[in-house]
Amino acid sequence: MTYCVGVRNRAGLVFLADSRTNAGLDQISTFRKLHRFEIPGDRVIVLLTAGNLAISQSIASNLRVMMHNPDEKSLANVPNMFSAAKLVGDTVRKVHARDADSLKDFGIEFNVNMILGGQIKGEEPRLFNVYSAGNFIEATAETTYFQIGESKYGKPVIDRVITRDTSLLEATKCLLVSFDSTMRSNISVGLPIDLLIYKADSLRVTLQRRIVETDSYFNMLHQQWGAGLRKVFSELPNPDWNGGIE
Amino acid sequence: MTYCVGVRNRAGLVFLADSRTNAGLDQISTFRKLHRFEIPGDRVIVLLTAGNLAISQSIASNLRVMMHNPDEKSLANVPNMFSAAKLVGDTVRKVHARDADSLKDFGIEFNVNMILGGQIKGEEPRLFNVYSAGNFIEATAETTYFQIGESKYGKPVIDRVITRDTSLLEATKCLLVSFDSTMRSNISVGLPIDLLIYKADSLRVTLQRRIVETDSYFNMLHQQWGAGLRKVFSELPNPDWNGGIE
Repeated sequence: MTYCVGVRNRAGLVFLADSRTNAGLDQISTFRKLHRFEIPGDRVIVLLTAGNLAISQSIASNLRVMMHNPDEKSLANVPNMFSAAKLVGDTVRKVHARDADSLKDFGIEFNVNMILGGQIKGEEPRLFNVYSAGNFIEATAETTYFQIGESKYGKPVIDRVITRDTSLLEATKCLLVSFDSTMRSNISVGLPIDLLIYKADSLRVTLQRRIVETDSYFNMLHQQWGAGLRKVFSELPNPDWNGGIE
Repeated sequence: MTYCVGVRNRAGLVFLADSRTNAGLDQISTFRKLHRFEIPGDRVIVLLTAGNLAISQSIASNLRVMMHNPDEKSLANVPNMFSAAKLVGDTVRKVHARDADSLKDFGIEFNVNMILGGQIKGEEPRLFNVYSAGNFIEATAETTYFQIGESKYGKPVIDRVITRDTSLLEATKCLLVSFDSTMRSNISVGLPIDLLIYKADSLRVTLQRRIVETDSYFNMLHQQWGAGLRKVFSELPNPDWNGGIE
């Protein structure tokens, strides 16, 4: 499985993606699920992918190949993020047209789910969720994030913390806690985590980092969050309707 | 949807079940999903149900009807919890034989998932997870809980807190926090919550309570847990590899 989150709020965009893939529990590998398309000063576009790895890699590769031909419509020249989302959707459909029937012969569903976010000069930062059918939705003012993959374990903490006004570093910290909770409860999500932070209107990637097992900040977060949670929990009083149970 | 948890550890058993059911988002009702079968001094058996409500009610009703006939094998006279689990499994298969084909005609899957726990005189308390096929697994020393239904949102906090040695009230507190997180992130799980606490070797229900919207303990928990979480979060330092972002 996979866990990816994209946040969009006033401060900008934050993307996190784990990198564990598995074809059965005995075939586990590490693959990058965060794809970056950047023309500094003009645009930053980020794609996070979940689902069948062959499909999502094919989509990302197609998007890259298109960028090599300046006469073709590509993420390098689409005029806005809505066009970028349409282009990603069209690319999903192209891969579907090529692969879906062959996959079906082997009983494999055409399954991919993506978060697309970024900013193109002249627009605000925008965030989309693109589906297997190539259709998509866009985050509105009320929607501060999209999740794909194993999203449920790590959702409560995001719901409690992230708002339109959370800073980029606070949001990053919150998403790392959300990943920590997910990895604790589900072994199919694992390190390293790819992180990309984009400050609104900067039109270049602000920070990209791969968080590996030895990352001292992530390890500190893991320990202090766990300890803090247990402390808050232990300070909550027990029920007063306790029927005399100790 | 549904969210139910059953805990078994050294102190005894704790069961929690929400009571929201929905057939589409515009048909939401409240139904009891916690079924109690008790002969004080001899046995306490509790069944939590998730899945198709018609199926799970039919199973519970069949189990009750059997108890009226003292010559028939029933939860009132099975000699141990393993026999109780087999009887519940057989009852699932009886309902399946009666209903599954008719459901299939309407494209409805035969879907039910249950937690069965309790103690019968002469045994330790035991806990089972019974599936749609009538087969089941039993919690061993390493397994302190089973969840059914919308289990993912509320799993991280249980994984962090409940052990073999957690007291019944601590476990109850933890499950209520787990329900609070789940209800925050998923509207298909809702109050009231049915709670049943069973102290090991007491052979009678220790406490049963329906937690409704006005329950002051649950509301306090909701507020203090949320506030405590945000406080722990705010005290965690921001990343030190911050690339100069504020």
